[in-house]
Amino acid sequence: MTKTMKCLVMHGVGKVGVIEKPAPGPGPIDAIIRTTEALICTSDRHTVAGAIGSRHGLTLGHEAVGVIHELGDLAAASGLFKLGQRLAVSAITLRYACDNCQRGHPSQCGAMLGGWRFANVKDGSFAEYFYVNNAVANLALIPDGLSDEQPAHCCVMLSKGFVAAEFAHIPIGGSVAIFFQGPVGMMATVGARLRGAGLVIGVESTPNRIALAKKYGCDVIVDFTKDDPIEAILKLTGGKGVDSAIEALGSASTFAACVSVTRPGGTISNIGHHAGGDSLPIPREAWGVGMSDNSKRTALCPGGSERMSRLLRLIETKRVDPLALTTHSFPFHNIENAFKMMQTKEDGMIQPLVSFAWRFDVKKSRPGICCSALAVPSQPRSHSQ
Amino acid sequence: MTKTMKCLVMHGVGKVGVIEKPAPGPGPIDAIIRTTEALICTSDRHTVAGAIGSRHGLTLGHEAVGVIHELGDLAAASGLFKLGQRLAVSAITLRYACDNCQRGHPSQCGAMLGGWRFANVKDGSFAEYFYVNNAVANLALIPDGLSDEQPAHCCVMLSKGFVAAEFAHIPIGGSVAIFFQGPVGMMATVGARLRGAGLVIGVESTPNRIALAKKYGCDVIVDFTKDDPIEAILKLTGGKGVDSAIEALGSASTFAACVSVTRPGGTISNIGHHAGGDSLPIPREAWGVGMSDNSKRTALCPGGSERMSRLLRLIETKRVDPLALTTHSFPFHNIENAFKMMQTKEDGMIQPLVSFAWRFDVKKSRPGICCSALAVPSQPRSHSQ
Amino acid sequence: MTKTMKCLVMHGVGKVGVIEKPAPGPGPIDAIIRTTEALICTSDRHTVAGAIGSRHGLTLGHEAVGVIHELGDLAAASGLFKLGQRLAVSAITLRYACDNCQRGHPSQCGAMLGGWRFANVKDGSFAEYFYVNNAVANLALIPDGLSDEQPAHCCVMLSKGFVAAEFAHIPIGGSVAIFFQGPVGMMATVGARLRGAGLVIGVESTPNRIALAKKYGCDVIVDFTKDDPIEAILKLTGGKGVDSAIEALGSASTFAACVSVTRPGGTISNIGHHAGGDSLPIPREAWGVGMSDNSKRTALCPGGSERMSRLLRLIETKRVDPLALTTHSFPFHNIENAFKMMQTKEDGMIQPLVSFAWRFDVKKSRPGICCSALAVPSQPRSHSQ
Amino acid sequence: MTKTMKCLVMHGVGKVGVIEKPAPGPGPIDAIIRTTEALICTSDRHTVAGAIGSRHGLTLGHEAVGVIHELGDLAAASGLFKLGQRLAVSAITLRYACDNCQRGHPSQCGAMLGGWRFANVKDGSFAEYFYVNNAVANLALIPDGLSDEQPAHCCVMLSKGFVAAEFAHIPIGGSVAIFFQGPVGMMATVGARLRGAGLVIGVESTPNRIALAKKYGCDVIVDFTKDDPIEAILKLTGGKGVDSAIEALGSASTFAACVSVTRPGGTISNIGHHAGGDSLPIPREAWGVGMSDNSKRTALCPGGSERMSRLLRLIETKRVDPLALTTHSFPFHNIENAFKMMQTKEDGMIQPLVSFAWRFDVKKSRPGICCSALAVPSQPRSHSQ
Repeated sequence: MTKTMKCLVMHGVGKVGVIEKPAPGPGPIDAIIRTTEALICTSDRHTVAGAIGSRHGLTLGHEAVGVIHELGDLAAASGLFKLGQRLAVSAITLRYACDNCQRGHPSQCGAMLGGWRFANVKDGSFAEYFYVNNAVANLALIPDGLSDEQPAHCCVMLSKGFVAAEFAHIPIGGSVAIFFQGPVGMMATVGARLRGAGLVIGVESTPNRIALAKKYGCDVIVDFTKDDPIEAILKLTGGKGVDSAIEALGSASTFAACVSVTRPGGTISNIGHHAGGDSLPIPREAWGVGMSDNSKRTALCPGGSERMSRLLRLIETKRVDPLALTTHSFPFHNIENAFKMMQTKEDGMIQPLVSFAWRFDVKKSRPGICCSALAVPSQPRSHSQ
Repeated sequence: MTKTMKCLVMHGVGKVGVIEKPAPGPGPIDAIIRTTEALICTSDRHTVAGAIGSRHGLTLGHEAVGVIHELGDLAAASGLFKLGQRLAVSAITLRYACDNCQRGHPSQCGAMLGGWRFANVKDGSFAEYFYVNNAVANLALIPDGLSDEQPAHCCVMLSKGFVAAEFAHIPIGGSVAIFFQGPVGMMATVGARLRGAGLVIGVESTPNRIALAKKYGCDVIVDFTKDDPIEAILKLTGGKGVDSAIEALGSASTFAACVSVTRPGGTISNIGHHAGGDSLPIPREAWGVGMSDNSKRTALCPGGSERMSRLLRLIETKRVDPLALTTHSFPFHNIENAFKMMQTKEDGMIQPLVSFAWRFDVKKSRPGICCSALAVPSQPRSHSQ
Repeated sequence: MTKTMKCLVMHGVGKVGVIEKPAPGPGPIDAIIRTTEALICTSDRHTVAGAIGSRHGLTLGHEAVGVIHELGDLAAASGLFKLGQRLAVSAITLRYACDNCQRGHPSQCGAMLGGWRFANVKDGSFAEYFYVNNAVANLALIPDGLSDEQPAHCCVMLSKGFVAAEFAHIPIGGSVAIFFQGPVGMMATVGARLRGAGLVIGVESTPNRIALAKKYGCDVIVDFTKDDPIEAILKLTGGKGVDSAIEALGSASTFAACVSVTRPGGTISNIGHHAGGDSLPIPREAWGVGMSDNSKRTALCPGGSERMSRLLRLIETKRVDPLALTTHSFPFHNIENAFKMMQTKEDGMIQPLVSFAWRFDVKKSRPGICCSALAVPSQPRSHSQ
Repeated sequence: MTKTMKCLVMHGVGKVGVIEKPAPGPGPIDAIIRTTEALICTSDRHTVAGAIGSRHGLTLGHEAVGVIHELGDLAAASGLFKLGQRLAVSAITLRYACDNCQRGHPSQCGAMLGGWRFANVKDGSFAEYFYVNNAVANLALIPDGLSDEQPAHCCVMLSKGFVAAEFAHIPIGGSVAIFFQGPVGMMATVGARLRGAGLVIGVESTPNRIALAKKYGCDVIVDFTKDDPIEAILKLTGGKGVDSAIEALGSASTFAACVSVTRPGGTISNIGHHAGGDSLPIPREAWGVGMSDNSKRTALCPGGSERMSRLLRLIETKRVDPLALTTHSFPFHNIENAFKMMQTKEDGMIQPLVSFAWRFDVKKSRPGICCSALAVPSQPRSHSQ
């Protein structure tokens, strides 16, 4: 009677593989989702590289959408959901009971970064089925007009990128610098535009990212391989510095640069995952020797059905189209190849989409992404089915 | 016709002395104050030690009260002031024209830390007369019930200490740790109580400061010479950390400790002047690798007549009595000795009050502080007249 | 096997009585509390008068503390609680799943005012046992040093009174007017002091409330039977008006007065329950014809274990002692008399405490409140056992 | 030696006319602007109708741009400006000295609505020259790429419309309803889009305004002549109500409707000028009987050079193009006709532009608006020169 399912797991640091596992069942307030589409995130790569320690047999993945397969008794009794409905679930799942949640910080549920459960303290979503705690708080219905692929980008990219902009407190018409223009940085760019920034300066050097960052709303790109970004940003702002700076990379030097380019009274918003070193440096003089009226804010990635609904609405009303982030597409049976390719980000890969076979029964995928948005169709690793 | 006056000036790094200078006159929107009482601040000592570079002939001092001696034409036309009225002027004087002021950061007027004019870019208040720019924005009338001495503590100590608490965003009933209990730290303690902190943890080791810090509202003192403050504070908060931490010393290690003792989603408020080193360290893991939903805020010392009026009201309605900060008292002709004693902070000195002779014509000084609040009357250096 | 218990229920509009009912059992995430102390609230009186429509057989009461009697399986599995522990539960209980909760408004859980469940949409706490939904989010452990009576005042009075002050955005040292000084108004007074108000003006006329309001922190009382409160408050503030005004009564005319006494840019915080009329009036001219940069904020009564813990801490660290609100004390078997007396608030009644017999097995009640804090010992109705 | 100039003045209630007056000169911190372009605002019409009482010989107008003609000594000494530079000045001019300004409410400078000086307490800008107090705080340089006409819309329309959206606290992706789509309402629509609204619902009935409101960002228009706007908005939001509502008309019933369509915890932002009646009604039940966690905010129109610079940047970086608000254009010598036409708003008039002859010496006006954007060239009243 126990169903099994395929999933991509981590076998200790540096090793991944597809295995079979029993499919999960829900507790009374939970839900089981049948996966339709998932995205591979740079942080999956970090996890496999050991960023959160070793894991054995843990299913990877935290950006996925699907349909409701099973509901716990209390979740069903809420009357809010029906089996078969399409849903998006944020990477951070709320429990909303602990004091951190009640203080308004559900990403820190129970403990620091405690809201990050998928592929960290419980199985993730690179599987045919995945488990969602606290269904009512976490399941966001996908509006009819949207594909499954667009909402998958809400799980991390939109939520994390946008919160970087929200916490940057950009005044309407204000200026912001965003280091760098990876997928989260590009969504921070969109977020900055959505919050009314009057001047968005992106820092980046890779040509395909520069092109996409401009499309997503950067007014100017500073290529740090050609110019010193601190000097360039100060020059672009008449020597004053920007109202706000966003760190979306996770490096000590870009964090310090964010402080250096921000004017007195401004805000530095950190969304980058700082993976190494004992400490991050705040440059003392640029920080006004501790008295420049400046603010710094950090965030993980806010989750929950209410936020996800707002993010989905922004796609629905055409404020943002995240599809350009999906540069490649793979069937689930080919996920190991996708994962390998994500190590090197070769072929201009930004994010690869992983599709589950059964979904082709219900609808067509978006035409035109078989292998690469930048189109190298002869590479068999990514478009084989 | 040009009057001269005595003042204490800096003669290059490490040297001070009383000289005669022409008394200043006002521009059309300005005022001249005849000084009655002044306080010597640790930052005066830093200035003389070279913290802001060398200065030659610059009058020191930025905490002083007095009476209106002369008003510029436009200031007089405002009808708000009369000659002879008692006034307090904050150390930071507003001009309120530049974009930093309009953005809500008048401490950063014109440029980073630009609101700090006294004894920095213009003559300070250790003089028989001092000049105040933008009289209407900066002169706060002293209520009748108050002495001149209490308001002198508003110029820096109350404003800077309280803003540390205001920017710490302590939730009502929340917990706060304050490193350390110098005069600004003690006023941050009062500020934390005024913002409704439910648990105020002071970090300090000097016995007289510990005693005073308790009087000013610390529920617990962690003596860092006996206990590791990070461990002690975590223990006092059940392992969770405090809601907010305040850095009121200006050292890299206490700044790092503030991050380490603050829970996810909490706030670190820096008010300390960080005088040395290239950078301040944020401990990476305690900071949630950049994703712990934490906030950091810095401030110089908000000025202006409106804020000063609120600070004066808090003294008037007996919410705070800053007089215990004045441990010693000197006549102005003895200011060089006071300054010397401030180098070593011997005799338990916290802040020395400097009184101007002519004020004794109008009213009596507070009884009981001739030399030291801790009473060592035989020391001739401080009570000679 | 089904236990029964006694409880005070509403039998349609205007009628109450003690009946027997089956004792409740918990769902998987819930708890059952054995009641030790409860307080009767003016809103219980309103409910019986028909304010929320008729109810038949609904147990009244929403301010109570007790010990854990039974835990649902998942609540027990959290490991946070043990049977027999003493707990306080706010009147508003969180579920923290709906979008209003996720938006930061758990008082509006599911729908407007939806967090108010006790004695509204489910049985209240004037019973030997009561049911608490979502145990982890709602149970706050009572610190050892506190009686049971003090925490009972946190359920509504402290939480509601303090939030009135928190949402009033009183600047440090600012001025606030509080209409009127009933128990919530007095706790708003304490809250205003805890947020650093420099001048607290209470509006009230009853002598015992005036006396208590001064004790709780009003600097000045305006007796509206002697002076026009708008004129008096403008006079007290030099014609400027207060920074903030708090409506803690629930009347259209005091709400309008709050707008009239608040200066441009100030805040009106409404906590009063406005029980009648189609609309509340905003006086047009005092409101700057809609352009005076003023803010209005309303609140129900924030709940949840995290907030309750902070309120309990404020009692523990002696920031507030709510016991003076308990003017009378009754045993549970006499609750009908207490309820009757609450209709008229005779004998200077502010709040009556109701004690459950079994609690006398474990500890002594506070000495000195047998009948009335204002001491009229000969009235048999309130101190009989 | 005293130059005279032409200006449009009010001759008591209901009467206007062009007269000659001495040209103004500056005080030491002030500036004189030679006017190039001005816009007539609905509030000029209100003023003439008696909204602020009678005025005799007061020059009308508060939306204008021009070039620096003369600077006071201190303003010149700032080194920030040169004669001949093009500048925009907001309708609200800052002095930034009083306590309201220091509290962050410069629109309420000195007294309620006190920042509104032009055509209220001093001569306005329908004149060949106009006077600007506090030049440094109020003069915003016009970037080279912009015409004079675009910045004129910043003086009121963009600043007031955008602040309505800023104070509405629309969450990213949230929903907002805007009553109605006059020029300020349309700019509130742009503001809502700039703050990231996911769904903007406009309420309007006039066809040309509906068309323009859609162009400026309304996702849906509710035509109140066809549907009940409260029902329609609740239906569009699944019965929940909007996150935020904006009153941009100034009527009691639309204000009440704003409360009725806003969900618990939401915000009502009032920017409408409420010209009549004793009070505005808050519908009691929709307001949660005073406990729905809702916020209300009002604003006049924030001014100052820093805000103006951000608004100008938003035009420069193509976030908004206000030119479609200018439906008609007149030479200054024809301003009386423009004013007459503004009474009736015939010919689909939204805002008429008034151009000063001498400007044609320096540059060409925007082609295509001679009489009406909706083009009825044969009407002599508006395109005669």
